[in-house]
Amino acid sequence: MKALVYHGPGQKAWEEVPDPVLQDPTDAIVKVETTTICGTDLHILKGDVPAVTDGRILGHEGVGVVTEVGEACTRVKVGDRVIISCISKCMECDYCKEGLTSHCQTLGGIGWIFGHLIDGTQAEYVRVPFADNGLIPLPEGVTAEQGAMLSDILPTGFEIGVQYGQVSDGDVVAVIGAGPVGLAAIMTAASSGASKVIAVDGNKFRLEAAREFGATDTLEAGPDVVDELKAMSRGGLGVDVAIEAVGIPATFATCLDAIRPGGHVANVGVHGAPVSFPIERDWINNITVTTGLVNATTTEQLLADITTGKIAPEKFVTHRFTFDEWEQAYDTFSRAADEHALKVIVTA
Amino acid sequence: MKALVYHGPGQKAWEEVPDPVLQDPTDAIVKVETTTICGTDLHILKGDVPAVTDGRILGHEGVGVVTEVGEACTRVKVGDRVIISCISKCMECDYCKEGLTSHCQTLGGIGWIFGHLIDGTQAEYVRVPFADNGLIPLPEGVTAEQGAMLSDILPTGFEIGVQYGQVSDGDVVAVIGAGPVGLAAIMTAASSGASKVIAVDGNKFRLEAAREFGATDTLEAGPDVVDELKAMSRGGLGVDVAIEAVGIPATFATCLDAIRPGGHVANVGVHGAPVSFPIERDWINNITVTTGLVNATTTEQLLADITTGKIAPEKFVTHRFTFDEWEQAYDTFSRAADEHALKVIVTA
Repeated sequence: MKALVYHGPGQKAWEEVPDPVLQDPTDAIVKVETTTICGTDLHILKGDVPAVTDGRILGHEGVGVVTEVGEACTRVKVGDRVIISCISKCMECDYCKEGLTSHCQTLGGIGWIFGHLIDGTQAEYVRVPFADNGLIPLPEGVTAEQGAMLSDILPTGFEIGVQYGQVSDGDVVAVIGAGPVGLAAIMTAASSGASKVIAVDGNKFRLEAAREFGATDTLEAGPDVVDELKAMSRGGLGVDVAIEAVGIPATFATCLDAIRPGGHVANVGVHGAPVSFPIERDWINNITVTTGLVNATTTEQLLADITTGKIAPEKFVTHRFTFDEWEQAYDTFSRAADEHALKVIVTA
Repeated sequence: MKALVYHGPGQKAWEEVPDPVLQDPTDAIVKVETTTICGTDLHILKGDVPAVTDGRILGHEGVGVVTEVGEACTRVKVGDRVIISCISKCMECDYCKEGLTSHCQTLGGIGWIFGHLIDGTQAEYVRVPFADNGLIPLPEGVTAEQGAMLSDILPTGFEIGVQYGQVSDGDVVAVIGAGPVGLAAIMTAASSGASKVIAVDGNKFRLEAAREFGATDTLEAGPDVVDELKAMSRGGLGVDVAIEAVGIPATFATCLDAIRPGGHVANVGVHGAPVSFPIERDWINNITVTTGLVNATTTEQLLADITTGKIAPEKFVTHRFTFDEWEQAYDTFSRAADEHALKVIVTA
């Protein structure tokens, strides 16, 4: 088969590789029909994720058709059209039972293994471990493109942003960063009872997109953004929840500065450097700060929300490519803000 | 009457002052029988709390007898023996209704006003605002000394340490710092289902005390403490909950380093400087960090726990003084580790 193979920082190639084969009785093989590129793939290509080594097939999102199943698979069947969850999980260890599948102990403490510790989904075929847990049948009426948004980005914004941030009815929620994951948080916060969802970004195209994803208000990032957020909050005390979807110290600081006493900061951004936490101010403020990798435990709920029209993940898809256009797809996604790109779809 | 009056950094005096009078119909006057000194009082005397100005009567803990009530008081009556909660609260504003009485908006966003923004309890008499909410009748069988431990320290350790840390059945809990507030967290964690409560401190007397308060294990603070805590945790992954009860960057870092993926850091310590948060490591670890000032919403529950023998707050009381011995009481408490002092009781 052909696959997109990582060959060290800055190097990748769509090349011939051996077909994947079943290794464990809980494995399945999926023929990938539709996949996409994640910001994490760009990080990997920059060399930021040293666990990814030369020869690794990239990608951890996608929709496809099951072509083979191991003998221990009971739920997933050959011929099923499925969403490939970005998180693999045994569902037997204490972490999986607690819902913290992102840290599945059977997989060595990390549930994100596709395109990281094992070969990924930017390929004609992919081997899926614990296939009964990691493959979710695509229901009638949900498109492959919608399904591909449920591999990672929508559960990430929802679970790590909205759920960890404990967004409640009437809350004023600020989402700092309106890239794809911020937009996923905006879309799911808007359908979770927030009275206001305020998108903050430096890019006007993204702020316009944020409105389409359900933001009630938008703010251009700038030195007054904390004051502006407080002015839009209940009683001027600060927002109830701030969702960090950038991953740099300045935006994390904005979140901490903008919440009210009793408020929540839900960090979704991937950070490369420590941040300062002004605990000499905040020890008294009864705040909660959370971080996390997606558990992908809400995929079924989000599928139901698509079916009922509560969320519309097709809005993410701005560009479409095929497997012979990987260079263009990556080029477009890596210049997403300039290209007015959100998520790019790549199909077989 | 006589009261202990703050006269600027390092200056206090037990001196004649006017008797307090009812100012609002929701006020009561309490004759103080039993009070104590808090670490916060020492901070104030160092000049660390600039909101406390010359002339302020110190103290925010105590037990006494109601001598006068305003016409709007319906629950509290003259002659009641009561615990004076360190948190005043209107119970009408959104924060009080949410349980965040520590940030009562009617009181300007801060429920801790005794010995801070109004005159306090280290006096023969004290005026108590919103007396129906801030005075808790002392039940039969609970001593005044036990009750005084429920003004602040036990609810603080329980609410901000154990409850905010979400201590659950079977959890391995580390409490960093075994001073009075750490011991309060230890006592209430031990009765909240933790399978292990590990006390960490640099002082051997305090570690011995920790055992008496319910710690199952003790560790001397040192460079290997994180490794030692992990070795005592389930699966070696890290403790489930780390409670910070010191208030310096090093102990906050120990907490973050010692928890497992999915773990909790509950900060109880009062900090004077920012801390570094290694979010480049922890963004992926699904952790929760909380901070807070006590809400004092669990006083009744803790009173019930005294009655049933689940907790024994009399263990805090190591030294006793009278109102004419304030100098000795403060001197003993300010050298608590050397004096083997936990809480000092001062009575009329």
